[in-house]
Amino acid sequence: MTRNRADALALDAADPLAHCRQRFQLPADLIYLDGNSLGALPVAVGDVMAEVVAQEWGAGLIRSWNERSWIALPTTVGEKIAPLLGAGPGQVIAADSTSVNLFKLLSAALSLNPGRRVVLSATGNFPTDLYVAQGLGQLLGTDRCELRRVADDDIRAALGEDVAVLMLTQVDFRSGRLWDLEQVTDWAHEAGALVLWDLAHSAGAVELALDACRVDMAVGCGYKFLNGGPGAPAFAYVATRHQAQLEQPLSGWMGHAQPFAFAPDYQGATGISRLLCGTPPVLAMRALDVALDVWCDVSLVDVRNKSVALAELLIEQVQSSEALAALQLISPTNAEQRGSQVSFAHRDGFAIMQALIAAGVIGDFREPDVLRFGLTPLYLRYVDVFDAVARLEQIVADDVYLAAEFQHRGTVT
Amino acid sequence: MTRNRADALALDAADPLAHCRQRFQLPADLIYLDGNSLGALPVAVGDVMAEVVAQEWGAGLIRSWNERSWIALPTTVGEKIAPLLGAGPGQVIAADSTSVNLFKLLSAALSLNPGRRVVLSATGNFPTDLYVAQGLGQLLGTDRCELRRVADDDIRAALGEDVAVLMLTQVDFRSGRLWDLEQVTDWAHEAGALVLWDLAHSAGAVELALDACRVDMAVGCGYKFLNGGPGAPAFAYVATRHQAQLEQPLSGWMGHAQPFAFAPDYQGATGISRLLCGTPPVLAMRALDVALDVWCDVSLVDVRNKSVALAELLIEQVQSSEALAALQLISPTNAEQRGSQVSFAHRDGFAIMQALIAAGVIGDFREPDVLRFGLTPLYLRYVDVFDAVARLEQIVADDVYLAAEFQHRGTVT
Repeated sequence: MTRNRADALALDAADPLAHCRQRFQLPADLIYLDGNSLGALPVAVGDVMAEVVAQEWGAGLIRSWNERSWIALPTTVGEKIAPLLGAGPGQVIAADSTSVNLFKLLSAALSLNPGRRVVLSATGNFPTDLYVAQGLGQLLGTDRCELRRVADDDIRAALGEDVAVLMLTQVDFRSGRLWDLEQVTDWAHEAGALVLWDLAHSAGAVELALDACRVDMAVGCGYKFLNGGPGAPAFAYVATRHQAQLEQPLSGWMGHAQPFAFAPDYQGATGISRLLCGTPPVLAMRALDVALDVWCDVSLVDVRNKSVALAELLIEQVQSSEALAALQLISPTNAEQRGSQVSFAHRDGFAIMQALIAAGVIGDFREPDVLRFGLTPLYLRYVDVFDAVARLEQIVADDVYLAAEFQHRGTVT
Repeated sequence: MTRNRADALALDAADPLAHCRQRFQLPADLIYLDGNSLGALPVAVGDVMAEVVAQEWGAGLIRSWNERSWIALPTTVGEKIAPLLGAGPGQVIAADSTSVNLFKLLSAALSLNPGRRVVLSATGNFPTDLYVAQGLGQLLGTDRCELRRVADDDIRAALGEDVAVLMLTQVDFRSGRLWDLEQVTDWAHEAGALVLWDLAHSAGAVELALDACRVDMAVGCGYKFLNGGPGAPAFAYVATRHQAQLEQPLSGWMGHAQPFAFAPDYQGATGISRLLCGTPPVLAMRALDVALDVWCDVSLVDVRNKSVALAELLIEQVQSSEALAALQLISPTNAEQRGSQVSFAHRDGFAIMQALIAAGVIGDFREPDVLRFGLTPLYLRYVDVFDAVARLEQIVADDVYLAAEFQHRGTVT
């Protein structure tokens, strides 16, 4: 049943998150369906960054480490992220990149689960996660660390007695397939393995309950649904019960029990601060810090409900279009198994996405043939989804994408 | 021979770097002798950051990875740093923190020098450098990596057949003692070891010739003499001759030969990009990027000459003051053996520094009793040094520092 534009506008009028859109600075005449790759700019960031540069750095200089609490940023930002993860205090920290945090936590998981050496993951997991596990395996040797990759459907069966840690990304970056975090965590624990979730496409997009699901460890990204800015610091979660035994090899001064004592030997901090390594990028950290304030009064139930509704509208409009019949939905049709994105395969996916971007609708393309549309409930309207599909339909129906200008493949992120 | 204030003003009038001061936004009525800890704010940063936030991120969104060349920042920033290191192109990259880069390069050095397992360093080396080596040693086990620390004077003798890499910080963070980079590099090579220099307090402060000295590897800091902002990304140098064999364990997607192919297996990029791991913090990277432009027309010979002259003025003024007789110079008196800082020990060093800061002169204190004064030739005037010593003299002569408010020890950076 195709909706018309008035239906979409009616959905916007009834949207409990409608007021959040004004918290973002969005370009006029652009429909942005790529907030799962780089979140939009929260309005408050501009003024805060000007203050951080001119006052905190320029006027405060070195004093701002204490007087403006720069030194506490990894924990204060971590504590702002924690509620979005369903995590109690003292378990989340903002630091480094997702990849670097994965390295720390994979190492930590291996040392927490002695006698086991396998990092189990899915063949289709996000590549950098696999690369990091490969890097650790190459460093330690296969007798201490081996990455084993299996198809999604074989994960449970592959949880053998040698698996130290199951490392999965909850939302598949291509298809949007969503793992049942609680169920899979239980599988891992039943098999004596720890679980390390990559929540890059989950945090700020789906409801999470890390504590309640007894998740062991997690990492995630500050620049996607958390809108922290390009390359924003990442986060890491370690359940309190593991922190006393936590060891991680990137033992820099910020993770020392007494960072300013300049003691000759490393002694890790108790608690989540032990995951810190070097000095954090304060400018980027402060942008993430203020970006997180947009969540202050937001219910993740509302976010998830709207995400599902946006996705259903998108799927419905595409599937009811004859012109778009060649777009094959590769995201799960069941909303419970889908993150906050919808993806379609099309032989000419690259060119179609280029033409769509030229027409003012930004989604992204993923090799080999995937058109990916991210749905960010805080600033995306139903009417945006409606209009985006209308433009997509036009581009395909009129063969706009066959123009030479849309065929050239540069780098895309 | 004590100078008077007119002498200092005359030195400023003749200073070939005098015009550089206006490139920085410095608080009025403050003498900043801590630019070796956090460099001052270059004037250009404010406007560029506003542009980066509003236009590159806010308006450009995901497109800016290509259209504003964010994706190239690690290399473009690295190439701006290279001339300050005496490094030809393709050998310097900006990424992560100094500590994280040390971890990568220590791992790389061990794999480049098989059959050797010792990381040799100085007992007094910067603690985080030692911590990182300890972390790697704990991860790999002592049969593959062991940190050996000896006194500075014993470094050469300790370069035994088991030393894979000599890791030293060129400028001691407490005393300012400056290693002869060429000589020590030669010692390491004669003993079959690689050398990994930490240039945190060298880059932008002393003349460097990494290529000419046949240095193997180096790391350094973006936020000290390079003025890149608090926690700015660090840099790493690997000589071209080592890059083909370079392996490092933090094998994230940015260091992949084809980062956007999302290939299932890691294949490191050829060249220095292989040192990259995760997505860089773009806001912090762009601040460093523009901050480096202050060096465009600056001769490091001038910088070094002025640094030495500032230090000599500071030492001379302190040592000619009866009130300051209890301040014991712990920096080398010979300028050739001293970086761009001057340090004194005093039993009440902490309180004296607190009182000095309250009087508008910012230096810093390092445990246990060190008053440290950083000298940044781009924005520091001779008259600033003269006035700083005058205020120091007053604080000590009048026992100002004995007030209770200056005795409390909080965290300092």
